[in-house]
Amino acid sequence: MPDLAPVRIIPLGGLGEIGMNCMVVESGKSRILVDCGLMFPNAEQALGVEVITPDFSYLQKAGRLDAVLLTHGHEDHVGALPYLLREFPQTPVYGTRFTLAVVKEKLAEHGIGASFNEVVPHRRAEVGEHLEFEPLQVPHSIPDAVGYALSTDAGLVVHTGDFKIDWSPVDGKLLDVRRFAELGEQGVACLLSDSTNAEREGTTPSEREVGESLVRICAGVRGRIVMAMFASNVHRVQSALRAAVAQNRKVVTLGRSMETNVRLALDLGYLQFPPDLFVDPEAAAHFPPRDLLILCTGAQGEPRSALARLALGEHPTVQLEPGDLVILSSSVIPGNERALANLIDHLVRRGCQVLSATSSAQLLHTSGHACQGEQRMMIDLIRPRTFVPIHGEYRMLAAHARLAEQAGARPLVAEDGDAVELRANEAASLRTQAVSVGRRYLDARGALADVGEVALRDRQLLAETGMLVCLCVLDHKSGEVVRGPELLGKGVAGLDESRLSRARQLSLEALAELSPAQRTDHGLVEEALRRGVRSAWSKSLEKRPMVMPVVIEM
Amino acid sequence: MPDLAPVRIIPLGGLGEIGMNCMVVESGKSRILVDCGLMFPNAEQALGVEVITPDFSYLQKAGRLDAVLLTHGHEDHVGALPYLLREFPQTPVYGTRFTLAVVKEKLAEHGIGASFNEVVPHRRAEVGEHLEFEPLQVPHSIPDAVGYALSTDAGLVVHTGDFKIDWSPVDGKLLDVRRFAELGEQGVACLLSDSTNAEREGTTPSEREVGESLVRICAGVRGRIVMAMFASNVHRVQSALRAAVAQNRKVVTLGRSMETNVRLALDLGYLQFPPDLFVDPEAAAHFPPRDLLILCTGAQGEPRSALARLALGEHPTVQLEPGDLVILSSSVIPGNERALANLIDHLVRRGCQVLSATSSAQLLHTSGHACQGEQRMMIDLIRPRTFVPIHGEYRMLAAHARLAEQAGARPLVAEDGDAVELRANEAASLRTQAVSVGRRYLDARGALADVGEVALRDRQLLAETGMLVCLCVLDHKSGEVVRGPELLGKGVAGLDESRLSRARQLSLEALAELSPAQRTDHGLVEEALRRGVRSAWSKSLEKRPMVMPVVIEM
Repeated sequence: MPDLAPVRIIPLGGLGEIGMNCMVVESGKSRILVDCGLMFPNAEQALGVEVITPDFSYLQKAGRLDAVLLTHGHEDHVGALPYLLREFPQTPVYGTRFTLAVVKEKLAEHGIGASFNEVVPHRRAEVGEHLEFEPLQVPHSIPDAVGYALSTDAGLVVHTGDFKIDWSPVDGKLLDVRRFAELGEQGVACLLSDSTNAEREGTTPSEREVGESLVRICAGVRGRIVMAMFASNVHRVQSALRAAVAQNRKVVTLGRSMETNVRLALDLGYLQFPPDLFVDPEAAAHFPPRDLLILCTGAQGEPRSALARLALGEHPTVQLEPGDLVILSSSVIPGNERALANLIDHLVRRGCQVLSATSSAQLLHTSGHACQGEQRMMIDLIRPRTFVPIHGEYRMLAAHARLAEQAGARPLVAEDGDAVELRANEAASLRTQAVSVGRRYLDARGALADVGEVALRDRQLLAETGMLVCLCVLDHKSGEVVRGPELLGKGVAGLDESRLSRARQLSLEALAELSPAQRTDHGLVEEALRRGVRSAWSKSLEKRPMVMPVVIEM
Repeated sequence: MPDLAPVRIIPLGGLGEIGMNCMVVESGKSRILVDCGLMFPNAEQALGVEVITPDFSYLQKAGRLDAVLLTHGHEDHVGALPYLLREFPQTPVYGTRFTLAVVKEKLAEHGIGASFNEVVPHRRAEVGEHLEFEPLQVPHSIPDAVGYALSTDAGLVVHTGDFKIDWSPVDGKLLDVRRFAELGEQGVACLLSDSTNAEREGTTPSEREVGESLVRICAGVRGRIVMAMFASNVHRVQSALRAAVAQNRKVVTLGRSMETNVRLALDLGYLQFPPDLFVDPEAAAHFPPRDLLILCTGAQGEPRSALARLALGEHPTVQLEPGDLVILSSSVIPGNERALANLIDHLVRRGCQVLSATSSAQLLHTSGHACQGEQRMMIDLIRPRTFVPIHGEYRMLAAHARLAEQAGARPLVAEDGDAVELRANEAASLRTQAVSVGRRYLDARGALADVGEVALRDRQLLAETGMLVCLCVLDHKSGEVVRGPELLGKGVAGLDESRLSRARQLSLEALAELSPAQRTDHGLVEEALRRGVRSAWSKSLEKRPMVMPVVIEM
């Protein structure tokens, strides 16, 4: 029997950052992707970028992709699928019921179809001759999350997806601990496990505790109750509905993603509630404040969200008043702190009481990710030959690796573009930077063109100093200045008349230093103009603007 | 006796934001400023702005300023002084020893002198006939912090400055609780009290506890110890020195502000340590790792700080290695989370262990500001006729006001530009937006010119889409296009040759729709070019660039 090629596990995203999770697994001739997520830029790096996706050029070079397995429906796991499917239109997409419902909705927005395959925990399926997979039920902050057990040429690979260990989940779907233990017994070559909370000791509180806390908080409130949360956390939505029922409140959903997710969950029968619980936003004004519970998006301070409209008093039918209670039932994604603080200020100005994780000692939110205690349990269940921490920034991967080491496992810390190579019955090896990976910066959802690193650098410079166009018409024979230099600024500071005339003067002087021969060299002329204009700004005191010389020969 | 004009308290900054604390107090003909701070922009709004100061135009209109009283030496209390003194050069500046030392250093950098007056707790001084002040000792995260008791025409006004109540401060300087109580007995018309931590229950841990925790953490470390902290927290620096002495480590200070603050504290005798404790950074390489403790700046992830250089391995004489411990002994200022996370990732990549407030259960830092318990105590000590929360964003001021109400005080929530008017033996009244206030956005430290709101808006647009210059030469008689349109882009996405030629084509078509008469109107021609170029970007899919038409008639 000839030597088999090693099984390769290659992260295209998600190892070294939070978001854009995307993992290639190659076994024999089969090549699959586990997840295909996007990432949102940090507010501070926005520069017009709305969406960041992995770069799929490795897959293009490799030439084929046999399947995409999705672990769950969060944007950082499925959001780049529309972009992938434009390049690989026929790829079968595997996912659980809720995951596929979310994905179909998203693809329809992009006007893209796909070949969908619903998966069910325990039911095995194969991709070509060298790869089989089996979904593994895991609790997470969205319904129907799974990990995958992959049977490869080099043995079993277990990918946890995002998970926590919740012994009292709202939907009753526990971690399939028995199956994880069985896999561990069978022998697992490699465990890939969620590192998001690897810096946190202990265990993550149960979603049910949050639900009970929300019911307690709502008791006795006399005004409206507004709960803002991640719309896809259907478990949390279920808890909110319970709180509403306990108080005889009607429920209004506000915000497009909240409406969408509630509709999807209703269609699949994933929410339990009495009839006539929901009322339309248009009807909300007919109910006294104490009869309403408003479920909405915007807990991250997003500027055009439902909660932002409520905070600014801009919602057509729901007006918040003193006595209303706003509960931010979510954590704050780093980078959103400022926007959220401003939003809370607006709500407080309207007289609302606001409960948020930073200001309240009550349990308003719990993570969907395992802390160290649960991560340790997963490692102990699986006892893999090699442990690879996934989903996290470098320090999180490193902390998870340290934990695995303490548990007696052999960790490999891989980052995007590294390859973990597995051969049957051998220790895994790591090839760093085995494939070239990158990011695509898209300036709008659905955009096809990458903004590109050069344009982003220019945008950063433009943001910091503005731009000054320096227009100059030269005689094409003599090189003498026929007209100009004229200066046109955008976003430039300190641009008064005296500064402008000085800049014109200095750029003329810089031109005058050029010989007639040099003046025929566009590059030299432009450089002289740039230098002249910039020197009108003092070097030490102020930022010099970016200068774009525009030279015309007539 | 004629009616006295009301005493007016007018915040120019710090009420509605964290930073740029600056409060006008007017009594009779005396007008003083308590503090004159600056604010740093959030990373996400940077746009080239380095420093934000209050707008002093109210003072310019009012025509005189008799004194500036400083509560302590933090940038958000003294940082705008150089800008103020350029406009009011003769104003006497009052402050305690350490505060003046910090301020002198800062003014020297700006090449500005001032008339300094050292104040000492309990020692009263007067400003004109209608205002007397007495400094009140308060603990804070910098030496020599004080509040002020102001004797005005309307009675006593107490300004706490920034404070906490620390019963075991490192420097032994307790809150002057006896004097605060005496003032309360005398009757206080108005209490202005620090609201920074008004959303936090309980009390702030003592600085001494942090010091003891740091000593414990350092025990047994075998590599280098790096402690990053706010340089002006001399108490914390003292604790770090104690930890070094306990371990027989030498101390290296890195970072300009750390070196400056340690030098100032040494000069004033504010640090106790055995001889030969400090060694130069140049000598650091001669000591084994376990003999060194490095005190540095950069705990906020600032890109060019000492810690950032260490993390990137760019420091000439200090190289961090596996086994070294980095302690981030500070909180994270909102907006800096991302930069700090990146910095920690770099340190972890070098093999360092990193302890930070988010990842460690140990006490690495304590706030310099009072929590609700201490705030309540201050209100109970003073029992003011009117309570005005100061220093905080709106929700913090509102939370502090609620606390005061529970304590039986009468709160007024004022924001920048509002005036609190006090008359003897009367309840205070609030005039909202009594004076027009603003912010000055400076693009470099020392800069005199305000970048201005228009330029900032343009920078934001440039950052999001980049800019495209559309150059077109028209015949000045016929209005026919002689040359162009030519397109020059900076930071524009999707700018390939086909897009460019389409944009040229569409702008020519837009021009062709103009009549000959219309073509003589520059505005119409520019608008047509702008419209034409922008329509080359599809409306739904991509962001259209900012277009600057440049039309030349020849």
